[in-house]
Amino acid sequence: MSIPTPSQDVTAVRGYLLGLQQRITGAIAELDGHTFVADAWRKDPGEPLQGEGVTMIMEQGAVFERAGCGFSHVRGPKLPPSATQHRPELAGAPFEAMGVSLVFHPRNPYVPTVHMNVRMITARAASGEQSSWFGGGMDLTPYYGYEEDAVHFHTVCRDALLPFGDDKYPRFKTWCDQYFFLKHRNEQRGVGGVFFDDFSELGFEQSFAMQRAVGDAFLQAYLPIVERRKAMGYGERERNFQLYRRGRYVEFNLVFDRGTHFGLQSGGRTESILLSMPPLVSWSYQQQPEQGSHEEALYTRFLPRRDWI
Amino acid sequence: MSIPTPSQDVTAVRGYLLGLQQRITGAIAELDGHTFVADAWRKDPGEPLQGEGVTMIMEQGAVFERAGCGFSHVRGPKLPPSATQHRPELAGAPFEAMGVSLVFHPRNPYVPTVHMNVRMITARAASGEQSSWFGGGMDLTPYYGYEEDAVHFHTVCRDALLPFGDDKYPRFKTWCDQYFFLKHRNEQRGVGGVFFDDFSELGFEQSFAMQRAVGDAFLQAYLPIVERRKAMGYGERERNFQLYRRGRYVEFNLVFDRGTHFGLQSGGRTESILLSMPPLVSWSYQQQPEQGSHEEALYTRFLPRRDWI
Repeated sequence: MSIPTPSQDVTAVRGYLLGLQQRITGAIAELDGHTFVADAWRKDPGEPLQGEGVTMIMEQGAVFERAGCGFSHVRGPKLPPSATQHRPELAGAPFEAMGVSLVFHPRNPYVPTVHMNVRMITARAASGEQSSWFGGGMDLTPYYGYEEDAVHFHTVCRDALLPFGDDKYPRFKTWCDQYFFLKHRNEQRGVGGVFFDDFSELGFEQSFAMQRAVGDAFLQAYLPIVERRKAMGYGERERNFQLYRRGRYVEFNLVFDRGTHFGLQSGGRTESILLSMPPLVSWSYQQQPEQGSHEEALYTRFLPRRDWI
Repeated sequence: MSIPTPSQDVTAVRGYLLGLQQRITGAIAELDGHTFVADAWRKDPGEPLQGEGVTMIMEQGAVFERAGCGFSHVRGPKLPPSATQHRPELAGAPFEAMGVSLVFHPRNPYVPTVHMNVRMITARAASGEQSSWFGGGMDLTPYYGYEEDAVHFHTVCRDALLPFGDDKYPRFKTWCDQYFFLKHRNEQRGVGGVFFDDFSELGFEQSFAMQRAVGDAFLQAYLPIVERRKAMGYGERERNFQLYRRGRYVEFNLVFDRGTHFGLQSGGRTESILLSMPPLVSWSYQQQPEQGSHEEALYTRFLPRRDWI
């Protein structure tokens, strides 16, 4: 279930992704008043994966305590088995993978953390034909839950996907809930969003258009929430809860996230993979929220799976 | 390569482990001036693993910012495949596993973090015969390296193992270096110590005696280092370096540590498994120590594998 892809299409995806990274970091820098540092890197010849990327990061901004947004484009001689389950004709084929991935950790505990990723894998079969498939999505992780924020985020996701069929949002929303689940905590990572992988069912042009729709919707999904929450007053209690809950983000990414775990174990670029880590995190034993508190509401009303629209 | 073990021997190991937990937490509480909270737990009937334990934890002590020491004793109907590689006769046999595991995170950056674990697995073959094997060790993770601390720690480990053959320390020291390695950072976790697993080659009595020697040596290996360092003055720079380096501890435990990773994915008791997490941790992008600094010496002189004795 992959799609024939001429190489100018691969170039088009790369161009889109680089532009998306610029647009998003530009808007975030404008909102924050601090700039991103851009770090262009290239894998040494002789490493198992070849490739290059641009890591952009803002640390200790006014609104964002740590905001990382990475573009990478890697090439390998043999598609890993995990990627060829549904594509036996491409087992062991030379491949390219490219994507933009971001995690923004705000300073104010009332502003949720957000993650977005769009990626494409393309491989050349023995016949010489090139095929591609897409993946991506975005999800929201509040520390203090607000219904209107979750509804807004999901509504933007739904509207972005609607032109590609009204089945897409419900499928990708459920997929997101299933993926961003911390089994050892029996907890969702946050209020979800959308997630898709191995996607090529609309053909190259429309699948790529759908990926663009997701990437393009990100700022609209997230910025209004940041604007609403960023000036809310908070104290030590809210800060402590945020640091504690950030521990869940670390647990998910290091234990369960396939990209992170696979990347770290297989020789990916560590500092770029760990852009997703929060700037400051705490762990404490059996922390329990007070009954009836805003913190408790996160567990009882926001983390359980819900239809937000 | 397992050892016939009558059930009174299993009881003896359990008794030793519970006593060890008491002795260690007692000494640490006395040194710190704060007490451990003891939390006895039991798995609900119907969970895949049955068992119980006592989790002891001190948080926000004077010397220790987070110090966890857990005893657990679990029983399962079927030994997992990972444990029967070397024991085909015990594949799928009912088993018990018990151990004491501790990680102490000090407040002062000049005091190293320490980990110690002693454990026994015992299984009943179809013939009705019970067999056991031991595992464990301890390792030291300084933020600021001191040769005398590393030498002291390794010397106590070596001396404790010497009565059981002069091959034990060199073998277990190398095993420790191999195990506590962060592949994605190309870094050791710290200055090492000793690590052993699947151990039964001395027969039950002597293997158990060796495990006791390791457990009994812990306070002697660690406390003199704490006493030497705990009153050293430090500032924001040292504190920040400690928080940053604690990130490596999190990365190792969540990505590579077999016990942690397996426990979290297979339904272990999360809060007890994550006793090892530091109280406060930071991540930042490509932090580089200043040339010629004490921080740089950690990377150049202490983390590379060395023979400390």
